[in-house]
Amino acid sequence: MRLEKDMKLRERAAKVIPNGMYGHQNVSLIAPGTPQFFTRAEGAYLWDVDGNRYVDYMCGYGPQLLGYCHPEIDRAYCEQLSRIDVATGPTPLMVELAEKWTELVTHADWAMFCKNGTDATTMALMTARAYRGRKKILIATGAYHGATTWCTPFPDGTVPEDRAHIIHYEYNNVESLEKAAEEAGDDLAGIFASPFKHDVLTDQQLPDPAYAKRARALCDEKDALLIVDEIRAGLRIARDASWSLMGVEPDLTSWGKSLANGHPISALLGSEKAKAAAGKIYATGSFWFAGAAMAASLVTLKILQETDYLERMIGLGTRLRTGLGEIGQRRSISIRQTGPEQMPLIMLADDQGNLDMQRGFAFCSGLMEKGVYFHPWHNMFISAAMTDKDIDMTLEAADRVLADMSVDA
Amino acid sequence: MRLEKDMKLRERAAKVIPNGMYGHQNVSLIAPGTPQFFTRAEGAYLWDVDGNRYVDYMCGYGPQLLGYCHPEIDRAYCEQLSRIDVATGPTPLMVELAEKWTELVTHADWAMFCKNGTDATTMALMTARAYRGRKKILIATGAYHGATTWCTPFPDGTVPEDRAHIIHYEYNNVESLEKAAEEAGDDLAGIFASPFKHDVLTDQQLPDPAYAKRARALCDEKDALLIVDEIRAGLRIARDASWSLMGVEPDLTSWGKSLANGHPISALLGSEKAKAAAGKIYATGSFWFAGAAMAASLVTLKILQETDYLERMIGLGTRLRTGLGEIGQRRSISIRQTGPEQMPLIMLADDQGNLDMQRGFAFCSGLMEKGVYFHPWHNMFISAAMTDKDIDMTLEAADRVLADMSVDA
Repeated sequence: MRLEKDMKLRERAAKVIPNGMYGHQNVSLIAPGTPQFFTRAEGAYLWDVDGNRYVDYMCGYGPQLLGYCHPEIDRAYCEQLSRIDVATGPTPLMVELAEKWTELVTHADWAMFCKNGTDATTMALMTARAYRGRKKILIATGAYHGATTWCTPFPDGTVPEDRAHIIHYEYNNVESLEKAAEEAGDDLAGIFASPFKHDVLTDQQLPDPAYAKRARALCDEKDALLIVDEIRAGLRIARDASWSLMGVEPDLTSWGKSLANGHPISALLGSEKAKAAAGKIYATGSFWFAGAAMAASLVTLKILQETDYLERMIGLGTRLRTGLGEIGQRRSISIRQTGPEQMPLIMLADDQGNLDMQRGFAFCSGLMEKGVYFHPWHNMFISAAMTDKDIDMTLEAADRVLADMSVDA
Repeated sequence: MRLEKDMKLRERAAKVIPNGMYGHQNVSLIAPGTPQFFTRAEGAYLWDVDGNRYVDYMCGYGPQLLGYCHPEIDRAYCEQLSRIDVATGPTPLMVELAEKWTELVTHADWAMFCKNGTDATTMALMTARAYRGRKKILIATGAYHGATTWCTPFPDGTVPEDRAHIIHYEYNNVESLEKAAEEAGDDLAGIFASPFKHDVLTDQQLPDPAYAKRARALCDEKDALLIVDEIRAGLRIARDASWSLMGVEPDLTSWGKSLANGHPISALLGSEKAKAAAGKIYATGSFWFAGAAMAASLVTLKILQETDYLERMIGLGTRLRTGLGEIGQRRSISIRQTGPEQMPLIMLADDQGNLDMQRGFAFCSGLMEKGVYFHPWHNMFISAAMTDKDIDMTLEAADRVLADMSVDA
């Protein structure tokens, strides 16, 4: 059996972990045949506990940007660990890192480092509220900005008051955004936006420049803060805040996942205007000031600036998109590919063009057996460690799986 | 100048970090002469950026339990890092770690791992609310349970609704606790307690067994969950939940800081009764499932079980307490020493016995110059890496500083 050890581990896990696993890495809601536990990672590949190898299109749900077990980055981590990591104060690396990231990101004049993405979005929320002492926060319906009381996508364990001052609007819809801003009146603290619409279970949308510019203008008019949540997309769209490509500069950006290629660090970056407000909030964590992840982030940053990692990811993503498009056409199967090429969401549609989760699950299950880790309803991540050969192997596997599915249908 | 490089770094930091530093590691509110930046750590010692060495009584505010740069624990971290750390799924180590921690902690039947202490307390809050779909949470006035919207000790950036259903009671006061429970009525979700009263700026208090038992009984009577927040004190009081020493078993315990001797991992542990509720909440983080910190935690756990680290910490703390008591008496200076010997809060009092922060600051500044890192208003942490020699050197330094202060006064 392909996942024999995995299944045994799941039984043990069910005894000592609620639901056997929790959060975004619980595979019970994705394609059958998806392994839960892994024992090795290298470059673009993962090996499950049964020894099966996968080209991994999830990259740990984002953290892996330049390849798993990156020798240079991990060496920097461990070398710093041997000198000082967590201590009774930060290391000088923290200052250097804040200097480097604010150099890279145009809008940013300051940085605060933390651990989870949710830490950074929560600090953004609090900074926006502290900025002018206002309460209302605009968030796009369906957008994911973390997993704590005010933002977790499921209501269990939260109370209605946790979202008392959150107003929803529709992403990319200027009218809806304006209506929400009007509802906030003179109590508007900030507007949250994702770099592009990367909600789960639905086609992704690139940002409409008119929407992004209107969000910026509304914040300027009302003296509120524009927050772009870069945690998932950051560093995969630009070597700067993602909306810089449209000439829109946010006041706050939240970063995480790939800031140190998988080492635990996240950040809130902000403009001078928001600095005093950020200085008012109290946010901290036991491991936030630790040096090793900062050393790793400094090396990551250097690689981002010195290599063509981004252009290569876009090239690989384009090769995948084009190839899958051709296969779909040849096999008369409608493959919905949305979002940026380097962060594709790939779902199957039925004959009427509606999303068909069952077919999507079957597609991913088939790929999984052929050593390709695809996700049926979450955006995926191209890694800079992938090669054309990995993409071609994926396309070959996809072709075979879709051929089988055509026969079955 | 003793802190020349430190001061230059602070100037650079002020440009790119709000207030130059944030959170609990910002030294601007503690004794003058306290260094902000460190470049080396080993065992019980820290070296600041100017090369001055300190016996560190803060242990990174808790994470360092068995000594900085612990060779065996850090080796486990880096070895695991070379195989797999963050990935698209957890490693089998996560199951093993949940098994081991639930074996060690009597009340615990399951574990959920996270990164910050605040993650664990927030998950405890949400689990208690999800348990019977109730809202009210009892928290002791002045207790620290993390730094996010519902619990951060300062109001900036929060809204009143963030604490809509939190009712405060006085620690160790049964009557106050009962009154709060009555106020919650049939909407009581849970009661938070610290293992002992370790609030800042005030004498610490050991838990009154009558209070602990009444908290347990109230939760039983009302079918609510008892949460003991072990993040600061855990593993420094017992090799089990701290209240196990009084025969009181909580339903939920939050752990962090020292779980992997400084590597970033925290946890919520719970009893069978609370498992379904914990399985309902959605909580997750990009780095929560990473293997390296889990490998480090497994080694830490082994050392805790195989060595007399706890008894040694208590012995060292007792030597310090006794010595300081003698010095105070000899110098006619009233030194207020409260809390467990291994987590002492040490503050100076004026002639009337009232806490005197100015004298406390002067005491810590003096010690700092003599290579001893003391905190003027936060509990400190004895490290198992300290020796009698370190304590004796500390006592000698304290005697000299207090002698100077007596002359000055």
